[in-house]
Amino acid sequence: MKKVYIIKIGGNVIDNPVALEKFLNDFSLIADSTILVHGGGKLATEMAAQLNIPQQMIDGRRITDAETLKVTTMVYAGLINKQIVASLQAKKNNAIGLSGADGNSIQASKRKTGEIDYGFVGDIHAQSVNTGFISSLLDLNMTPVFSAITHNRDGQLLNTNADTIASALAVALSGKYDVQLNYCFEKKGVLKNINDDDSVIGTITPQNYKELLKDGIISKGMIPKIDNAFEAIQKGVKSVVIAHANDLLNTTNGNKRAGTKLIAG
Amino acid sequence: MKKVYIIKIGGNVIDNPVALEKFLNDFSLIADSTILVHGGGKLATEMAAQLNIPQQMIDGRRITDAETLKVTTMVYAGLINKQIVASLQAKKNNAIGLSGADGNSIQASKRKTGEIDYGFVGDIHAQSVNTGFISSLLDLNMTPVFSAITHNRDGQLLNTNADTIASALAVALSGKYDVQLNYCFEKKGVLKNINDDDSVIGTITPQNYKELLKDGIISKGMIPKIDNAFEAIQKGVKSVVIAHANDLLNTTNGNKRAGTKLIAG
Repeated sequence: MKKVYIIKIGGNVIDNPVALEKFLNDFSLIADSTILVHGGGKLATEMAAQLNIPQQMIDGRRITDAETLKVTTMVYAGLINKQIVASLQAKKNNAIGLSGADGNSIQASKRKTGEIDYGFVGDIHAQSVNTGFISSLLDLNMTPVFSAITHNRDGQLLNTNADTIASALAVALSGKYDVQLNYCFEKKGVLKNINDDDSVIGTITPQNYKELLKDGIISKGMIPKIDNAFEAIQKGVKSVVIAHANDLLNTTNGNKRAGTKLIAG
Repeated sequence: MKKVYIIKIGGNVIDNPVALEKFLNDFSLIADSTILVHGGGKLATEMAAQLNIPQQMIDGRRITDAETLKVTTMVYAGLINKQIVASLQAKKNNAIGLSGADGNSIQASKRKTGEIDYGFVGDIHAQSVNTGFISSLLDLNMTPVFSAITHNRDGQLLNTNADTIASALAVALSGKYDVQLNYCFEKKGVLKNINDDDSVIGTITPQNYKELLKDGIISKGMIPKIDNAFEAIQKGVKSVVIAHANDLLNTTNGNKRAGTKLIAG
């Protein structure tokens, strides 16, 4: 099966032009097929402040009212997405920027209102992904670049978690490709000791994960990320790598190692 | 040759949600392949005002400094483009939103500074168009939706006139397709009498155009539009139609007539 790297970058890279440029340069050097998924960083929050649109965050998640949706659509699917695409094109990587609405690539359902009304937020799963269309782009040697905006196919755009988009893409494409899902973040990997940046756990399997949990080694904030990663692996993704954005090329070259690799065992 | 309609809508449609919805509904009913090109309307100007970015217009053209480029990229390639795509998807039209950077679909050169420095404004011609990529999308039964943003393939996004994008696309695709280029605007067509909205000139050929010019019937503002249209026709476009947005379906159905049709004669 053809190898595909699905790589998610977070706000810390987006917010730093120098880090972003280095990252995109490394990204463009990956010889295999790639898909990039990007979050939004602080720019949407700053833009909302300038436009006097009050922002409400609950547990780190943005409540998306109609005005906030406009801001996130402008910033994520417009400014950030097109700047990334133009930069990759300059590096001769044939990038194409997409929201989930484009080519109906990712369809979502508006999150049901429970105790919290998240507003125009979309929930997706692997079945939401239009694998046929995305395969067509990969066959054309193109690099899809996804912003964290989807739609419900009833005309409504929806703000959608970029981690979830990356994992849904990875699971959906794993039927046809050998998929490695990379989460790039600001640490070198999953750490044994949260205060020691070099205490990276090289490999986590479902077996040693149980022990790491039992011994209280994995920090609380990491647990949902790892649980989601193992869920993706169970559904067909070959491996999930959690690593620093600077280490991208050491996680996409079989001869090198960096970050934490999660595998089926 | 396969028929392709390249349809440009102006700001007056974009600015009016009811008109836009009717237009997109009609657009989605066209059975042949279609490409949509949209301008930006007043939203970019309003957004710039809210963000305290001074705007300078010279002869109706926006001087695009770095901050203004961010605004136009957000508004054109982000908000408006994705709202149009989501709306078309709801009508089961498989739309895909593009800037010229996406898939390197339209490459531009930054306008040289002469008497006026237009800033980050792109100039394009038919050779700027990546016809192979656009053909691939049409072959997948997709509808490209172009915003008025291009790039120079050196990492720089560029604000680009939507009329010019439409005409460059039309000329570039005319080698492979039977292309009709439609300019939708707020009048019923080219008028014999500027004060009589119903005095539409049905057909203009290079022959009767000379007479219309000699008799002073064509208004001054229309002359560059018509000159450009004939240039496109000379370069292979089958016909150019200038008509009201409401009349779209009467200009894309061989049995009906609306607006002014420009043909080689």
